[in-house]
Amino acid sequence: MPADVTTPYRVIYGDTDQMGVVYYANYLRLFEIGRNEWIRGSGSAYTRFEDAGLFLPVAEASIRYQRSARYDDLLAIHCWLANLKGASLRFEYEIRRDTETLATGMTRHALVDADGRPQRWPPPLKILVKEWQAQLEDQADG
Amino acid sequence: MPADVTTPYRVIYGDTDQMGVVYYANYLRLFEIGRNEWIRGSGSAYTRFEDAGLFLPVAEASIRYQRSARYDDLLAIHCWLANLKGASLRFEYEIRRDTETLATGMTRHALVDADGRPQRWPPPLKILVKEWQAQLEDQADG
Amino acid sequence: MPADVTTPYRVIYGDTDQMGVVYYANYLRLFEIGRNEWIRGSGSAYTRFEDAGLFLPVAEASIRYQRSARYDDLLAIHCWLANLKGASLRFEYEIRRDTETLATGMTRHALVDADGRPQRWPPPLKILVKEWQAQLEDQADG
Amino acid sequence: MPADVTTPYRVIYGDTDQMGVVYYANYLRLFEIGRNEWIRGSGSAYTRFEDAGLFLPVAEASIRYQRSARYDDLLAIHCWLANLKGASLRFEYEIRRDTETLATGMTRHALVDADGRPQRWPPPLKILVKEWQAQLEDQADG
Repeated sequence: MPADVTTPYRVIYGDTDQMGVVYYANYLRLFEIGRNEWIRGSGSAYTRFEDAGLFLPVAEASIRYQRSARYDDLLAIHCWLANLKGASLRFEYEIRRDTETLATGMTRHALVDADGRPQRWPPPLKILVKEWQAQLEDQADG
Repeated sequence: MPADVTTPYRVIYGDTDQMGVVYYANYLRLFEIGRNEWIRGSGSAYTRFEDAGLFLPVAEASIRYQRSARYDDLLAIHCWLANLKGASLRFEYEIRRDTETLATGMTRHALVDADGRPQRWPPPLKILVKEWQAQLEDQADG
Repeated sequence: MPADVTTPYRVIYGDTDQMGVVYYANYLRLFEIGRNEWIRGSGSAYTRFEDAGLFLPVAEASIRYQRSARYDDLLAIHCWLANLKGASLRFEYEIRRDTETLATGMTRHALVDADGRPQRWPPPLKILVKEWQAQLEDQADG
Repeated sequence: MPADVTTPYRVIYGDTDQMGVVYYANYLRLFEIGRNEWIRGSGSAYTRFEDAGLFLPVAEASIRYQRSARYDDLLAIHCWLANLKGASLRFEYEIRRDTETLATGMTRHALVDADGRPQRWPPPLKILVKEWQAQLEDQADG
């Protein structure tokens, strides 16, 4: 299972604002793209959670903007699982253009049902999540 | 019931692109804002359709861009019902800044259920729709 | 000068995602709407900064999502200036629906020129900013 | 030079609305993605136009929505040049999921300078545009 998943993204006009740079809210779209690919690369797809009537809405997000991304830039969205406690996950992100870091950030998620009530991992997902947990411990040891 | 509903809209940075004008896709957001307010002003709210398990997805949209809308512009979104046949509606739009027309367009909608299957107007909404029809005929006569 | 500016916002379909709630990135659009109105209500408009060749890009943003905003909700975007040191500003935000707090957050901004280089307040804007500073001190004393 | 350029696109949560399908305005973002890649694949990049102080804003757009695109769908954005007369271009689009057509549409563009005034093709771009023209004639003959 990958610790860090990198997803390419080409900036379009629709991402930019009149300062000629990617609009600040759109970085959270980039984070979602990276997160989706991390989950897909880690033995599942987010649709599998949804099929079980479960969701991982964002409870908290933060971002630091260091350099501007521009139209037609080919960005690399780096995403990794940084923390996993009970039914709460924390993903971290880095948006790069070649060797430059443009932005870093994190999102925190909690497992809920369709009515937004906190849930525990059901058996089929528990196996997946235990693998994620093991991976995090390996990284901490390594 | 109003024939033409006008909704004010203040352009934000997030609406613009690097040409310094409102990004072309965002005009369809403006159309939705105008359409929501037309429906609200015409004896209902779109949520009332949804509560009945009915939806009015867009089957077709077109738009002509004449002048550019810019950051901080206070726009007027004009929306009116232009056609209503069976379970199909057509709204038309004009985006203005003071006396200038910036864009004109239309959207065509069909009544469907949650699975996208075409539906007929159910009794409670039929009364509303008949009023809309009468209004259109009055306009044609007037 | 207002300490806290409240701007109404009606949620559209285009703001929501398939969980039936406002997509997490769109809260940063709401923050921008509130910030624009705070600046307008505080003796200026952001366009005045731009006319002087100056910009206040976001250097950092964070947000806590507490309850979900839904389609057709009439939200209140609260925005206030929380900190002002040299050429750095911090705005804070609260998104409410009636008496409920849906989300809180902040953005930090730095004054730069068109090339992104840090700038000092030029004389005409300095007067404005001193008033903002005085207002913050009054709040701290009060 | 390619007549039809196909670009893959993975749907994210941020593209959907509460009907569980891609929001209608976001198809115009997909069109832009396809158009950018068509231009890049056809001997240039849109940034080359911009470097010459020229732009190709959208003068008209239309779209027919046939089937819904959903979260996590892997779409294929097909784009081709359909018409080129003087300094006016028309692109056409088809959004597919496997063998299904989800939407079709077109955008019409006019060459302008930074102030929005109509322009003629300057010498370096004229060569490129003549190749596009020749390609269109070949298709008509073929």
